[in-house]
Amino acid sequence: MSRFFSKKYSGLEPYVPGEQPSDMSRYIKLNTNESPFPPSPKALAYAAQNTRPQNLYSDPESALLTKALADTYGVKPRMVLATNGSDEILNFAFMAFCDEDNPALFADITYGFYPVFAGLNAVPYELIPLREDFSLCVDDYFGKKGTVFIANPNAPTGMPLPVSEIRRLLEADRNRIVVVDEAYVDFGTESSVGLVKEFDNLLVCQTFSKSRSFAGGRLGYGIACEALIADLNTIKYSTNPYNVNSMTSALGIGILTDGEYTRANCRTIMENREFTVRGLEALGFRVLPSGANFIFASSDRIEGGEYYRSLKDRGILVRHFDKERISNWCRITIGTKESMQALLDTTRTLLEEKR
Amino acid sequence: MSRFFSKKYSGLEPYVPGEQPSDMSRYIKLNTNESPFPPSPKALAYAAQNTRPQNLYSDPESALLTKALADTYGVKPRMVLATNGSDEILNFAFMAFCDEDNPALFADITYGFYPVFAGLNAVPYELIPLREDFSLCVDDYFGKKGTVFIANPNAPTGMPLPVSEIRRLLEADRNRIVVVDEAYVDFGTESSVGLVKEFDNLLVCQTFSKSRSFAGGRLGYGIACEALIADLNTIKYSTNPYNVNSMTSALGIGILTDGEYTRANCRTIMENREFTVRGLEALGFRVLPSGANFIFASSDRIEGGEYYRSLKDRGILVRHFDKERISNWCRITIGTKESMQALLDTTRTLLEEKR
Repeated sequence: MSRFFSKKYSGLEPYVPGEQPSDMSRYIKLNTNESPFPPSPKALAYAAQNTRPQNLYSDPESALLTKALADTYGVKPRMVLATNGSDEILNFAFMAFCDEDNPALFADITYGFYPVFAGLNAVPYELIPLREDFSLCVDDYFGKKGTVFIANPNAPTGMPLPVSEIRRLLEADRNRIVVVDEAYVDFGTESSVGLVKEFDNLLVCQTFSKSRSFAGGRLGYGIACEALIADLNTIKYSTNPYNVNSMTSALGIGILTDGEYTRANCRTIMENREFTVRGLEALGFRVLPSGANFIFASSDRIEGGEYYRSLKDRGILVRHFDKERISNWCRITIGTKESMQALLDTTRTLLEEKR
Repeated sequence: MSRFFSKKYSGLEPYVPGEQPSDMSRYIKLNTNESPFPPSPKALAYAAQNTRPQNLYSDPESALLTKALADTYGVKPRMVLATNGSDEILNFAFMAFCDEDNPALFADITYGFYPVFAGLNAVPYELIPLREDFSLCVDDYFGKKGTVFIANPNAPTGMPLPVSEIRRLLEADRNRIVVVDEAYVDFGTESSVGLVKEFDNLLVCQTFSKSRSFAGGRLGYGIACEALIADLNTIKYSTNPYNVNSMTSALGIGILTDGEYTRANCRTIMENREFTVRGLEALGFRVLPSGANFIFASSDRIEGGEYYRSLKDRGILVRHFDKERISNWCRITIGTKESMQALLDTTRTLLEEKR
């Protein structure tokens, strides 16, 4: 820290992204929940023809992309805000809807960026523990003052919450915001987007990084009533008006035009997920029910940290969080069938070697 | 504003970007200081071959791009931070190096985003008036406590400050930061990058949006001593770790490998600038000395707002700021020779019609 760094950030602990090895070809990469498939060829062809000339600024309104998103979800364009990845829309939400009088409420086990955003914005927060089985019970949020952040499905557990529970939470207190972070929603979890017309206290955040194979392009978005999106736009135009670049915007539109490609990839990932779950359970692992493109697994036969390190030694990267309650677990991204077969084979070998 | 919007932003006035007309073909666009030339063909070819697969996250360290920038400027990679446009590095600087005890100091006439960043971050600021002739005198900053932001060349005036003056400002108080915003430096203004090894209180910000014809890609960067860049990285990893997308990163590297293309375009723009200045002066305009890819011009024969509106009616977009001291001026981006000829011809016609 330099002598110039503002005291207000002296306690800030930045987010630590998953490993991005420089020599990726050495690893089967199952650690950052990316899609194993490239973006749709039709999307690439669309972007090649429709990217705004690069010497001009990108459209600060991202009007074409915003309209395409609005059409996809059956809402008005003024109910959509596109951002530089979904971390940006989440940060905007912490900025706009939390402060000293309005703390953030989120689970003890969830996306690790929430406490960082709270720290960055000097927002107090309260951790609401998940139940013993890692399930989230919305009743635990009742009667508490603050803006609620729920990852659905949750990370790193993968466990989904039905929309009926989100509805119950929204109805319980219409005077506070609920942010539903649906980064992984397309892999079998119910989306709450359908509720934004009914609840003016709901913000749903999604991303192109997972089901749409576009983590490299950095494209996220929020969907909410017009008033909330207007607030978030006030933040955006005070932070980075041209936040989405022209190439990403065009490719994003292209991806939306080929929804069948995305849905087919999601079906494949869900099949591979079931294949992997069955394989790990056969090896004695406990695997939480997942509505995401990853699973959360643990075993009594190999400790979580050791499992992570042993897999890495053998060329497979998964993610281990050295954190209370989950240090014996690993989060495993679902990739191709071949990758998952390799994971199962390597796991079997590891367990045999430990005998 | 929704009932949920945090009180802390109730007075926030967002930045207003220059007009981006949806039907751009209707206008000669001289209002947002873009380059009239496309990015280097060699850069596009490089990016086509070297963009990381889109399904994977972009490199959070932007290591290859950072190294290419470091090599370009003869500094270490740890002295460089790439960002999503230079607005992002400027905002990070307001976050990291200003607070209640450490106000921001900047000119009354300068980049209009500085007061917005100050408002966003609850940072007090003091406006230091430019001299009567719009020149900036660094002595006016001596003895004042706070972090200094200087656009060099300044916007919207275009007036450059020699490095010897920046040096004098840095030496006068080594216990405060000076941020030199060099968005337009490549058009004949001296850069202060050479001072970063000598002064640990200097941050230089630059962009690919102007001389490098890549406004659509959103790529900016800061260069400073390692300790300051480390502070800014703490902010980045708490805000948006994957802030630069993979396509922009690859194209940025490609652009740096073809420096001669950039330099040739800058020479052309500077020639067109001299051509435009001579033409406007012949029509009785006053034009400030410019070290940028735009000029700031006024005339006693046509009021600034009227000149802007009349040009727009005739298909030429320039930028007018309805603001004290400069409401009689227009900022005119330097484009191709043909565009500037059209500006001069239209201006002559306007003046003749007013007789």
